[in-house]
Amino acid sequence: MARIIALLTDFGTVDPYLGAMKGAILSVCPEATLVDLVHEVPAHDVLAGALALEAAYPAFPAGTVFVAVVDPGVGSARRGLAIQAGEHVLVGPDNGLFTFVLRAHPEARVHAIVNAALGRAPVSPVFHGRDVFGPVAAHLARGLALEDVGPRVGDAMVLDVPSPRRLEDGGLEAVVVHVDRFGNLTTNLSARECQGPALHVWVGGVVVPFVGSYADVPRGAPCALLGSSGRLEVAVREGSAAVALRAGKGTPVRVTCGPGPVGSLW
Amino acid sequence: MARIIALLTDFGTVDPYLGAMKGAILSVCPEATLVDLVHEVPAHDVLAGALALEAAYPAFPAGTVFVAVVDPGVGSARRGLAIQAGEHVLVGPDNGLFTFVLRAHPEARVHAIVNAALGRAPVSPVFHGRDVFGPVAAHLARGLALEDVGPRVGDAMVLDVPSPRRLEDGGLEAVVVHVDRFGNLTTNLSARECQGPALHVWVGGVVVPFVGSYADVPRGAPCALLGSSGRLEVAVREGSAAVALRAGKGTPVRVTCGPGPVGSLW
Amino acid sequence: MARIIALLTDFGTVDPYLGAMKGAILSVCPEATLVDLVHEVPAHDVLAGALALEAAYPAFPAGTVFVAVVDPGVGSARRGLAIQAGEHVLVGPDNGLFTFVLRAHPEARVHAIVNAALGRAPVSPVFHGRDVFGPVAAHLARGLALEDVGPRVGDAMVLDVPSPRRLEDGGLEAVVVHVDRFGNLTTNLSARECQGPALHVWVGGVVVPFVGSYADVPRGAPCALLGSSGRLEVAVREGSAAVALRAGKGTPVRVTCGPGPVGSLW
Repeated sequence: MARIIALLTDFGTVDPYLGAMKGAILSVCPEATLVDLVHEVPAHDVLAGALALEAAYPAFPAGTVFVAVVDPGVGSARRGLAIQAGEHVLVGPDNGLFTFVLRAHPEARVHAIVNAALGRAPVSPVFHGRDVFGPVAAHLARGLALEDVGPRVGDAMVLDVPSPRRLEDGGLEAVVVHVDRFGNLTTNLSARECQGPALHVWVGGVVVPFVGSYADVPRGAPCALLGSSGRLEVAVREGSAAVALRAGKGTPVRVTCGPGPVGSLW
Repeated sequence: MARIIALLTDFGTVDPYLGAMKGAILSVCPEATLVDLVHEVPAHDVLAGALALEAAYPAFPAGTVFVAVVDPGVGSARRGLAIQAGEHVLVGPDNGLFTFVLRAHPEARVHAIVNAALGRAPVSPVFHGRDVFGPVAAHLARGLALEDVGPRVGDAMVLDVPSPRRLEDGGLEAVVVHVDRFGNLTTNLSARECQGPALHVWVGGVVVPFVGSYADVPRGAPCALLGSSGRLEVAVREGSAAVALRAGKGTPVRVTCGPGPVGSLW
Repeated sequence: MARIIALLTDFGTVDPYLGAMKGAILSVCPEATLVDLVHEVPAHDVLAGALALEAAYPAFPAGTVFVAVVDPGVGSARRGLAIQAGEHVLVGPDNGLFTFVLRAHPEARVHAIVNAALGRAPVSPVFHGRDVFGPVAAHLARGLALEDVGPRVGDAMVLDVPSPRRLEDGGLEAVVVHVDRFGNLTTNLSARECQGPALHVWVGGVVVPFVGSYADVPRGAPCALLGSSGRLEVAVREGSAAVALRAGKGTPVRVTCGPGPVGSLW
């Protein structure tokens, strides 16, 4: 059976940290298939890491183990967690990285990492990715039971992500939470949070049409659509919405919905 | 048998798109060996993607399946293709990405992707890499016949790449088509397009010596040579030709050839 | 048995060189598990490559083969090497890349690469990573004996890395040799080079406290600590020491040690 371990960090690819963590994983589970998800999460940006994890993990096969390390509190008293959510297992710091995973899986089993025998010795107080999370994930990929990592806990940290605000006119005010490489704007509004079909999307003072795909507008024109991870996204076809609309993280995006059943936005 | 699937995209490594595509591939073929080729192809630059693919795919073993996704037309009517070229299989959008593969393999068998059962459901209109090309490649890696992807077609799109222009004095005028991380200039002139040994290479008003290797000139000196993928390249030893010669994409490079048999340039 | 081949280069991820090298490796050893360590070593910076290798390779399991290519002298007369150091095998140019590996393993067996049958034919004079080092590593991963690569040699090149300077007052003057993605400063001072517990660390005119972990100081405060690869490191919690202390490669870092046995710094 394939033992897939997928890695998401803010380590970047310029430094050797990621390589060292991979070595530590393979030392425990040499037959693992390591998969790089994203390593350019902005340094210490737990929310950005949580969004990236949300976008990537559901596409993976049952049994995949994820190691997620965006860990500004490394060396402090913050706990480490190992989580069974649906068919996936996730390992990382207890700092909100798993917010969207836990929101999607209220039934998830969350365990604190306390079994020191699973990590490297000695544990560097500045590098739990290599010395704790990587090895724990490798043991889980080899079949270790979640119970053997540590006790089940019920108070995993979740981020206080702003929800879209309902306006007096029945519309919603969302906010840009991420700008991707293409200049596309990802918002905090998920399809399920809308009450009716989207009629108008406003970014700044500009109305952008709500469409099914980039290809529905001419080159260089802005549009709003359902992005690949189910969030409202604002884009410019073959261009950058961030540049064209002078928008960035924190820019409000207003959505006016028409009448219709809950959840029918798209 | 190893099932190697090699990935080339313009997704970058900052966003979770690549990770999601890998998950979709592994969901179909968990035992695949995924190999990252390049993911920093400039956004939407199909020609740059085609050049990168040309440089990388021939080194891979027989049976390797390539997924190439530089796809500004995602969600439009552009087709998806699966191609058998020599011992390699390639999957991606029909927009010219496979220009150099098809040029090198006139015998290639090209099939349009129409079998919807191979992709994820529903297909996101903005992410065919994850929902169509990745899964189709995974099925092909598992042994699916090309015929089962869709009908054979004869009109795959190829890019209108400028050819070097023959000058009145018998020389050739090439053009820089890519600048790499080291500042080396890759041109549109392949070894086989020359009629005799190169005598002089001009970039701007400067003559650069034609040599076998960077080491044939002093540090900081410019030179022209046959690059690792068989194209005329202009470089500066341990420096940047782009900076030193103020050259970039589109800069003309003139080659004066001496007498000799066709193809003997190098 | 898993055949792990780990790759460290200055190829970057924008160009297809890395992909081509991976293809050449898999053509020899299709069942290899390829692991990317770092590919963003600054172009031609052999010292930076040697430091990255030092930080990453010890975490890997016995039997791992490393291909390290930071190779400004490609195409010149510089040799290629294959090295058995402890339980690891390393392959790359003889230019100092293996300085810290050889320092840690005085017993290492170093062989020059002369067996042309192991490489690709013809060898491009500008791309030994693809045509020599990659294939040689793949053959070693498949079980080839080191002796079959070429004769044992005793004069591998090592870099003249500046050692910390002992000051008249008994302190040490180290120097920053690397700045990482987080703005952390790595110095040339390893734990074993100190004579007693660190009392004070000075960067510029500023004293920074010596602590066990980032979490021991408030957010935004500077600190000095033992980094994850055993070197003295200067950091700012959740910030950039490079920015806050206006420091970079070459900045002196002074350490005043207290009384105590050799090696007890940390």
